[in-house]
Amino acid sequence: MPATDLRRRGVPEATVARLPAYLRVLGAMAARGVRSTSSDELATAVGVHSAKVRKDLSQLGTYGVRGVGYDVAHLSMEIARELGMTRDWSLVIVGMGNLGRALAGHGGFASRGFRVAALCDNDPAVIGQRVGETTIVSLSALSDVIDAESAIGIITTPPHAAQQVAEALVAAGIRSILNFAGGALTLPEDVDVRPVDVASELQILAFHNQRRIQPDLARAAP
Amino acid sequence: MPATDLRRRGVPEATVARLPAYLRVLGAMAARGVRSTSSDELATAVGVHSAKVRKDLSQLGTYGVRGVGYDVAHLSMEIARELGMTRDWSLVIVGMGNLGRALAGHGGFASRGFRVAALCDNDPAVIGQRVGETTIVSLSALSDVIDAESAIGIITTPPHAAQQVAEALVAAGIRSILNFAGGALTLPEDVDVRPVDVASELQILAFHNQRRIQPDLARAAP
Repeated sequence: MPATDLRRRGVPEATVARLPAYLRVLGAMAARGVRSTSSDELATAVGVHSAKVRKDLSQLGTYGVRGVGYDVAHLSMEIARELGMTRDWSLVIVGMGNLGRALAGHGGFASRGFRVAALCDNDPAVIGQRVGETTIVSLSALSDVIDAESAIGIITTPPHAAQQVAEALVAAGIRSILNFAGGALTLPEDVDVRPVDVASELQILAFHNQRRIQPDLARAAP
Repeated sequence: MPATDLRRRGVPEATVARLPAYLRVLGAMAARGVRSTSSDELATAVGVHSAKVRKDLSQLGTYGVRGVGYDVAHLSMEIARELGMTRDWSLVIVGMGNLGRALAGHGGFASRGFRVAALCDNDPAVIGQRVGETTIVSLSALSDVIDAESAIGIITTPPHAAQQVAEALVAAGIRSILNFAGGALTLPEDVDVRPVDVASELQILAFHNQRRIQPDLARAAP
């Protein structure tokens, strides 16, 4: 399990999950010419308590200077290094439906070091088509076009195809997978899967909304 | 804060987050004609320990019968009711770029009670266009087309527009927002925002991958 793995390595998963937000805020500060910041400012921008910011950053061995705070450029670089942003990552998107094409054309990845390296589909009518500058290939041709060590797989297929696609990605040497397809994947322990399940997110919002508009439901619960 | 709100009402946020997965697995079982199931089976399908399944379901006041397990149909109905799936929810998608259009055309929402009720954009060239059977309107026309109480807003605009769009959704009476735009939103406390930040998810995967291929980084950390 990746979470266990990380805890053993000393950085709690919850801290890792907040690093991209710190990096984004620091990037915006740098763009405005801001040179130093405080844990209070970072906390407000990210939406956590400042004590948590200080603890998170101390996990990376980074401490603010009393009365001075954090150096924006240095802290950005530290977090970027921790997040592996100092190298380029190749994205492999499997499933060229609307969502796969939307992600393939997403402009916000390149600036964060993510390059769309391969687009895959199993439909012969789609293989060979171009999306932007990338030609869609079959999943079996994947290992010819990518360096698996620095690749991240993104599954945008229908749910029923996800397990098979994930196994093919793992067989091609990929160990990091973002799964939009819904459903649990059964994969080797060293494979790191992050699910993005839009329907589940909606159901969680609906749960809260339901209880907001029908408070009696909440009171009836044990 | 929604998390605090829910804890006060007795169902931990982590349990709520797993309910959609249980519901999906139960739906698949029902489709195969399976009538009863065990916490072990549910645990395997969802990818958690069976003790956690029993605890989660007991939070809803649902207990398995020893030697018999859980009734699939009854448990599905209980979870669906908790998740507010027994009423229809209207989706309002704001930002008709690739991602907004992909979500508007997503086939998996209707079966879970989510209906695309409105599509919004601020580009006059786009307003009036149809996506499927829905005509794109301006955000200011939103309150005419939806019942805000049962609506969920989905923000698929560029990041810089997200705060303004979120405020407009809240002004229209919407209290549940799924935010794909990245960045923290500053909104009233009773508004429930769930972020879906694909670039951050990729950065978290990159963090793990980086440490997998360069274990010295992990050892150097404090």
